[in-house]
Amino acid sequence: MTIKIGILGYGNLGRGIEYAVRQNDDMELAAVFTRRDPSSVKIATNGVPVYHVDDAIKTKDNIDVMILCGGSATDLPTQTPEYAKYFNVIDSFDTHAKIPEHFDNVDKTAKESGKIGIISVGWDPGMFSLNRMYAGAILSDGKDYTFWGKGISQGHSDAIRRINGVKDAKQYTIPVGTALDAVRSGETPELTTREKHLRECWVVAEDGADKARIEQEIKSMPNYFADYDTTVNFITEDELKANHSGIPHGGFVIRCGKTGLNREHNHIIEYSLKLDSNPEFTASVLIAYARAAYRLSKDGQCGCKTVFDIPPAYLCRQSGEELRRNLL
Amino acid sequence: MTIKIGILGYGNLGRGIEYAVRQNDDMELAAVFTRRDPSSVKIATNGVPVYHVDDAIKTKDNIDVMILCGGSATDLPTQTPEYAKYFNVIDSFDTHAKIPEHFDNVDKTAKESGKIGIISVGWDPGMFSLNRMYAGAILSDGKDYTFWGKGISQGHSDAIRRINGVKDAKQYTIPVGTALDAVRSGETPELTTREKHLRECWVVAEDGADKARIEQEIKSMPNYFADYDTTVNFITEDELKANHSGIPHGGFVIRCGKTGLNREHNHIIEYSLKLDSNPEFTASVLIAYARAAYRLSKDGQCGCKTVFDIPPAYLCRQSGEELRRNLL
Repeated sequence: MTIKIGILGYGNLGRGIEYAVRQNDDMELAAVFTRRDPSSVKIATNGVPVYHVDDAIKTKDNIDVMILCGGSATDLPTQTPEYAKYFNVIDSFDTHAKIPEHFDNVDKTAKESGKIGIISVGWDPGMFSLNRMYAGAILSDGKDYTFWGKGISQGHSDAIRRINGVKDAKQYTIPVGTALDAVRSGETPELTTREKHLRECWVVAEDGADKARIEQEIKSMPNYFADYDTTVNFITEDELKANHSGIPHGGFVIRCGKTGLNREHNHIIEYSLKLDSNPEFTASVLIAYARAAYRLSKDGQCGCKTVFDIPPAYLCRQSGEELRRNLL
Repeated sequence: MTIKIGILGYGNLGRGIEYAVRQNDDMELAAVFTRRDPSSVKIATNGVPVYHVDDAIKTKDNIDVMILCGGSATDLPTQTPEYAKYFNVIDSFDTHAKIPEHFDNVDKTAKESGKIGIISVGWDPGMFSLNRMYAGAILSDGKDYTFWGKGISQGHSDAIRRINGVKDAKQYTIPVGTALDAVRSGETPELTTREKHLRECWVVAEDGADKARIEQEIKSMPNYFADYDTTVNFITEDELKANHSGIPHGGFVIRCGKTGLNREHNHIIEYSLKLDSNPEFTASVLIAYARAAYRLSKDGQCGCKTVFDIPPAYLCRQSGEELRRNLL
């Protein structure tokens, strides 16, 4: 019996899910759902149907877990509670401030339908959250730090592209090495926004555009760049394509804490990711939690869950006995 | 209502538990149990009784979780199943090969008594196991590596002390930097024992002892040293005391995995610990899981559990709502 996975939304993340399913032979891809004309969507797996999203509910008895691959701004806030009426669902909702509201909405419909909904799965929120939580529970007298990068920020790249005279752009978020070192030393420094991350921009300007003005507009942009040390590099469209087409990302969660009768001992817990493909890694996390959703549902559980609620063993194919023998 | 903790065995780990309880004000130390004469044991917390271990069972209604701080070789295999008849128990049993048998023994008595037993809690087994498991569930097509150190190995230090002419000794296990770098590069190298760790020995010789012979005996000792590059340094007793009295440890769990339609993307997940005090950190992990044991018991659960079975949120004082708002 394989776990039948549905993918709703076939962009970078949806494609990542498709590839991840192929790496886990306890799963199979049952169907892909799209808002586009299904005949225009070519997927990598032979024999798997592509349906219009309007037809999704008709397939509810053939899909064990529906993975929602839409955006957090407008898609997931409505999609996840809606599809939890019919499917076990899982999403990567990442608008941190709105997670409590999203949780409540999904919990309500999932409890009514008797389905499982797991929200905010990925690496941040997701594995980074989990590591902040474990480290904080262990080192209760301590302080944690999260650094992101080196990696592409879609939001910052888009912000540069909206500047007049910019043809295309990519922006890397980069943790500051000296800040990382200070944190790892156990000094628990107070770090400003500028001290934690750099922003590195690769920009293709339109012919004849005023590069000095573009650079100035980027560096002074409030929220996005003004509070950071930002470097701006102008390159050709070919160079951008050749050297900056990937979607790498990663980062660090570090907690420093003290123990001992007189707080005399320092401890550092560090978790880091170095990812060639942000969406494919996020997809791999989603697939592991899809397995958990399936099992929780088989156990008769329902309602909304997050990575904090799920026993780790539920993510693994192996039995408890195999895990204890081979991994403990 | 605080969680009442009992400590059975008051050595380095037991003392670490006592200090950790002081850092978590949802807990209180209820009693310490020792095999020594209780009047000879001085603890750091005023007003807490020290009892002989033979009197432990009489206190069963006053202790929510008993933390067993004995050794894995002879104490815990009998103690944990025995005390699970009367208490929720937790141990740091670390003989990897015997974990399945220990699990079964504790599971049996804990199910009969309706208590919770959590075994093999600490950092390895424990947090390292958990990180091997999460990383393997996410990057199913990959390979993981565990490195230990830099840190004191008690077993190796003891082995040196048994050599004729050795007065005292400390041994550090040290991961090889080039091996760590090779793993982090995503190359998934095959590494021999010698390539992964170095052994550094600090030895105090008896007056007139043959240092060349001692060095030779250390370096050729089967299992302990023969398969490693080992350095031996002779120092005075004062130097050993001044520079090698601590109990630091740590290590790295690294998993490299591939994703993508053609396995074209590499990902590295790394978890590392740098600990000034091995027993105090282990104690901090035990205390977090003691909180989980208490809650699982309140939920009406019983039987043996490991870190793989326990929902992460059970380790934390905060409510699910607070965790989602502040840490997700």
